[in-house]
Amino acid sequence: MRMSALAEAAGLPVATVKFYLREGLLHPGVATSATQANYDDGHLRRLRLVRALTGSVGLSVQQARAVLELVDDPGDDLYATLGRAVSALPPAAAPPRDDADPYPRARAALDALGQVYDPDFAAVGQLEGALAAAEAAGMPITPERLAHYGRALTEIADYDLERMPQEPHAAVEYTVLGTALYEPVLLALRRLAHQDAAVRRLRDGD
Amino acid sequence: MRMSALAEAAGLPVATVKFYLREGLLHPGVATSATQANYDDGHLRRLRLVRALTGSVGLSVQQARAVLELVDDPGDDLYATLGRAVSALPPAAAPPRDDADPYPRARAALDALGQVYDPDFAAVGQLEGALAAAEAAGMPITPERLAHYGRALTEIADYDLERMPQEPHAAVEYTVLGTALYEPVLLALRRLAHQDAAVRRLRDGD
Repeated sequence: MRMSALAEAAGLPVATVKFYLREGLLHPGVATSATQANYDDGHLRRLRLVRALTGSVGLSVQQARAVLELVDDPGDDLYATLGRAVSALPPAAAPPRDDADPYPRARAALDALGQVYDPDFAAVGQLEGALAAAEAAGMPITPERLAHYGRALTEIADYDLERMPQEPHAAVEYTVLGTALYEPVLLALRRLAHQDAAVRRLRDGD
Repeated sequence: MRMSALAEAAGLPVATVKFYLREGLLHPGVATSATQANYDDGHLRRLRLVRALTGSVGLSVQQARAVLELVDDPGDDLYATLGRAVSALPPAAAPPRDDADPYPRARAALDALGQVYDPDFAAVGQLEGALAAAEAAGMPITPERLAHYGRALTEIADYDLERMPQEPHAAVEYTVLGTALYEPVLLALRRLAHQDAAVRRLRDGD
């Protein structure tokens, strides 16, 4: 298809598609003349990915490029690549304290859950910050609550991983989008599940 | 305790405590002289709440005041108050389209889950936006995934609600902090559960 058709299919202005091309976020089409090129479904798919990363997910062009490089070149160690790709997504974790044990709360929590983790993975610092904030507010996550949350999230994570494509490029793309785009879905669903549970409790109790 | 001791116990500068007093976020102490007052554990607890709302949660002073008014005066309909308090927390939902059916995806999802919900609750708009973003990126939430996520989040929500204090002021405070402060914990735990599941799958497969 021509660029105008590509832009329309992606729901983007032509100027935006040209910008992504110039920035290297979208690969060039196959030139059919000095001023025209052909684009295919691969380009459309990539545009949707770029739009999600720079739109809903809120990455800068530079941050999106770093994620796209991992999609394009997952390398030999898919596990490490998935970790790097997810670590490039918001929220940015606070830098670790210069300390022999920068993440004491996260480490204790993950040990209690019996989970394997890479201490360089950004989510470890995110967990540390979130646990510290709950503690400072006088509502620390109890071991019982941690175990309960951990079980429910392991069910979700197992479901997600079972559906991860085998092909490495697709696996990185699935992981990035499934992390960034499904997190807001999960949070909204929890708030709505609270409301549903509250109706059942408060109104049934009347 | 004196203000200096209160500030130290809360881990805040005295100037910040004075600012919260002036803004009405913290109730006055019991005056012991023209220039001194006594503060108690209720003040310390309130300071922790204010610090959480304006710090980790990221509310403005005005937004925090709106939440605190609901904590202080939960009124007769606790269910409606909890909904309003959670709706005052980020993320702000996009305003509904001026439409007979502004939240078609959220409505379909909640109907499929069999959940009761108030269409004015902000999380309905948040769910709509999150489902639309996933769809636009070419990774819509399938009915099977929705059912799976919904089950896991209902387990979490039931656990949360079982532990909600009976006393209305405490119930609002618990709901606000348990929503805002535990969401980042849940997201970090999901990312870490992914990593744990990926290790088990990818490395076991070697």
